[in-house]
Amino acid sequence: MKNLLLFLLNGNSCEPREVWLLMNFRTLFLGLSALMFIISLVMLVPLAVALIYGETHLLSAFLVPMSAGILLFGTVLWVLSRQRKLNKALVPRDALLLVSFSWFFVSALSALPFVLSGEIPGFVDAFFEIISGYTTTGASILNDIEKLSKGLLFWRAMTHWLGGMGFIVLTIALFPLLGIGGAQLMRAEAPGPNLDKVTYRINDTAKILWLIYTILTFVEIILLYLGGMDLFDSVAHSFATMATGGYSTKNLSIGAFRSPYIRWVITIFMILAGCNFMMFYHVFGRKFDKIRRNTELKVYLSIIVLCSLAIALVLKLQYQPDQTFAASLSDASFQVASILTTTGFASVDYGRWPESAKVLLFLLMFVGGSAGSTAGGVKVVRVICLFKKSLLELRHMLKPRDFFHVVVNGRSMNSLVLASIIGFLILYVILLLLTTMVLAFFGSDLLTSFTGALAVLGNIGPGFGSLGPSMNYGNLHPVVKVFLSVVMVIGRLEIYTVLVLFMPRFWRNF
Amino acid sequence: MKNLLLFLLNGNSCEPREVWLLMNFRTLFLGLSALMFIISLVMLVPLAVALIYGETHLLSAFLVPMSAGILLFGTVLWVLSRQRKLNKALVPRDALLLVSFSWFFVSALSALPFVLSGEIPGFVDAFFEIISGYTTTGASILNDIEKLSKGLLFWRAMTHWLGGMGFIVLTIALFPLLGIGGAQLMRAEAPGPNLDKVTYRINDTAKILWLIYTILTFVEIILLYLGGMDLFDSVAHSFATMATGGYSTKNLSIGAFRSPYIRWVITIFMILAGCNFMMFYHVFGRKFDKIRRNTELKVYLSIIVLCSLAIALVLKLQYQPDQTFAASLSDASFQVASILTTTGFASVDYGRWPESAKVLLFLLMFVGGSAGSTAGGVKVVRVICLFKKSLLELRHMLKPRDFFHVVVNGRSMNSLVLASIIGFLILYVILLLLTTMVLAFFGSDLLTSFTGALAVLGNIGPGFGSLGPSMNYGNLHPVVKVFLSVVMVIGRLEIYTVLVLFMPRFWRNF
Repeated sequence: MKNLLLFLLNGNSCEPREVWLLMNFRTLFLGLSALMFIISLVMLVPLAVALIYGETHLLSAFLVPMSAGILLFGTVLWVLSRQRKLNKALVPRDALLLVSFSWFFVSALSALPFVLSGEIPGFVDAFFEIISGYTTTGASILNDIEKLSKGLLFWRAMTHWLGGMGFIVLTIALFPLLGIGGAQLMRAEAPGPNLDKVTYRINDTAKILWLIYTILTFVEIILLYLGGMDLFDSVAHSFATMATGGYSTKNLSIGAFRSPYIRWVITIFMILAGCNFMMFYHVFGRKFDKIRRNTELKVYLSIIVLCSLAIALVLKLQYQPDQTFAASLSDASFQVASILTTTGFASVDYGRWPESAKVLLFLLMFVGGSAGSTAGGVKVVRVICLFKKSLLELRHMLKPRDFFHVVVNGRSMNSLVLASIIGFLILYVILLLLTTMVLAFFGSDLLTSFTGALAVLGNIGPGFGSLGPSMNYGNLHPVVKVFLSVVMVIGRLEIYTVLVLFMPRFWRNF
Repeated sequence: MKNLLLFLLNGNSCEPREVWLLMNFRTLFLGLSALMFIISLVMLVPLAVALIYGETHLLSAFLVPMSAGILLFGTVLWVLSRQRKLNKALVPRDALLLVSFSWFFVSALSALPFVLSGEIPGFVDAFFEIISGYTTTGASILNDIEKLSKGLLFWRAMTHWLGGMGFIVLTIALFPLLGIGGAQLMRAEAPGPNLDKVTYRINDTAKILWLIYTILTFVEIILLYLGGMDLFDSVAHSFATMATGGYSTKNLSIGAFRSPYIRWVITIFMILAGCNFMMFYHVFGRKFDKIRRNTELKVYLSIIVLCSLAIALVLKLQYQPDQTFAASLSDASFQVASILTTTGFASVDYGRWPESAKVLLFLLMFVGGSAGSTAGGVKVVRVICLFKKSLLELRHMLKPRDFFHVVVNGRSMNSLVLASIIGFLILYVILLLLTTMVLAFFGSDLLTSFTGALAVLGNIGPGFGSLGPSMNYGNLHPVVKVFLSVVMVIGRLEIYTVLVLFMPRFWRNF
């Protein structure tokens, strides 16, 4: 499996001119087959869980897509990998295509157990549920989550965890290649988009980040288990937390667990999952000055602390005056962390909170977690850059002859990176408004449409109004569900990756 | 009066170093006094209207502030203008201060007749109403507009017209000096911010634009009068239309006039008022190729046509199927023009329209009219630039070594102008979210807060929810009213002008 993954992302950076048209498609097909093969194998885990809980009716629901996948794609891989002439390098364009399309194919395969078991009979619904899992969005179509069998609940949570892991590879391996912010910002080395010099193999950094991701997940599982959660729920919620996904095994989400300890553990792990994973890497390497100099981390933590205090005050004064301030702070910080890190867990129905608390959460939906985390959204570092940029424009007005640089994490920002961030923001707003329009066209009200679009594009999950924390996406029109599935993937892939596919220039000289 | 205005904006561009500290404040004081003097004189017009309608109770309400203003500021002007040592030049910093503060002082003076007559007893309410007039926002605190006496109704509409006229001076004279987009975009010469070369006297262009503004107002008055509106209403509505303000003399706004002719006349004049006034100048000069090459005009008109058709379809299919399509189109195009040009008239209560129609109007609130018009908002040309910029970023991803330019109105955009547009957008979003938070903190719900903030910052007037077309701003907390007054001015002055005042650097070496 490691070899397959290595193969998948092991490439050179030659221009595609010398590669045959057919060759390109073959490489793509090979990559996709490898992924599908892996996913088919991975389904063994939820199947095992199902068998442990004696859910024998799930046997065929898992075995049919699994064996079909393993046989079909295994054969393809075997045949193709024996061809000597095959160019196994993934050029940038192939990588773009592969990453964009694979989400849909992998999700279609992964949705089959839900359909075959009859627990989510509609394919569109199952597809939406799974793509929402892989993109770590956590928007569910399920009315009664607890009705699902254990095996499927586990599979649903596991898609989060796999999606989060896949996203780490993307930010390390693919995004620098495309020059789209994420990893450049993350490492604060900001070399600017430079196609030639970046070799995009899964390097040691990625391995260490995966290790951190896995360790943190295990630690959370243990802590939750010690807090009285059963093992199954501990694992499922740890998967959803570390991937900043948000799928719970309970209808009330975290509201089903009354223990303050459990809520604080989840709050803290949501905050950790929304941090740049390079920070943990630096902790291991004892490079504490790198952590101290990180602007994004400071701003990220400040936002959490300030917004939690503000909302706690509002809750204490206007909503539940008989509650202790500590309890209000617990509710507030849980929800702030959940929205800012784009996880989407709910410990209470914050749709009933006072308007000023709701507006603060609404504003956090525009921010998102740190770059280099599993979180979605615009990302804190981009917000910082944009804020600094606008301040510079003001200074520029007073001293028109001087030029200023945006300094983030102790380094001056490359103007090309800055331009790509601005382009990103513009596309984000355009997509947000377009999605709002689609939702409204199919009958959602203005508030639901706008916040729902924000929640899906930012991979958060719940919005406000009819898509609030106590509601779900099940009542939407099937066309809307398919559309939102695409939006989730676009949001997860930081927009550019998918939108580039729609440009005629992309397909020229294919 | 012409001399005073010329004096006000006649300046050189010397650096303020050689000017005394005291001198600077004197110049400012002189400029402000001149403005206050003019406004005191102008109040003769609504007073005359009041007397024509026999509203003698308004005599003292107008005469007291008028005579006080004329005596006080007349004396100041007389004394100061006799001082030989006075440096009459307005350096950029003085101009910025004057323009920002004068809105508040002028509005305070203009609000007095409302307070003294007792028709709007609270000063904060009267101040909000008048500043909403001068900034051509059209957000009213009045529950029952028709209860006002004719003289005050006229004065209210006249503040729109004066504000629109003042804004034309600003875009011609002040904004190019500050390098903030408006005029540079308008003339499509885009020289970039160049403080030294721009002499900011009221030049021939401004005179011609004023002439166009006045002629169009007269034509609309005549057309409305011919359509059966009485002279008073024709004048008041023409003032509000050409300034893209939105104050009506009726509680139902344009809904009070059932004639389709009147509605179409107002629709067309709203669209004209939202055009770049240089286009009319070119019509006079028979430079039709300049009009044909104008990207902004094409996009502006396309938005109106497409959105009108889309909303008309929605209305016909989902809302009033028994209405003819022509009637639906009339309603739709009226409302589209009203929101896009930031006028804010309502011919029906569009708060009751189907959600998809409302969402389209909501999206138009993000756009605004053309640069070089009296309209507010982000402006069409900025939206075009941002859209093109984001497309370029996509192309850049595919060809990282190539550089592309944003081309608008047949010319390549200066990168500094582009940067200032992007800075503008970022500040716009920050202010929008801040205003949303303030509204929510004082108890407005999320939808009302967000759309209300958008309506005030973009100088539109009505939002959705509790600040919808059939509602008003009267029930807000006085603190919110004062805050929104400041936001209206910031929006009108294209943000930079006011925000620069908050920078410490601005006050250094004063």
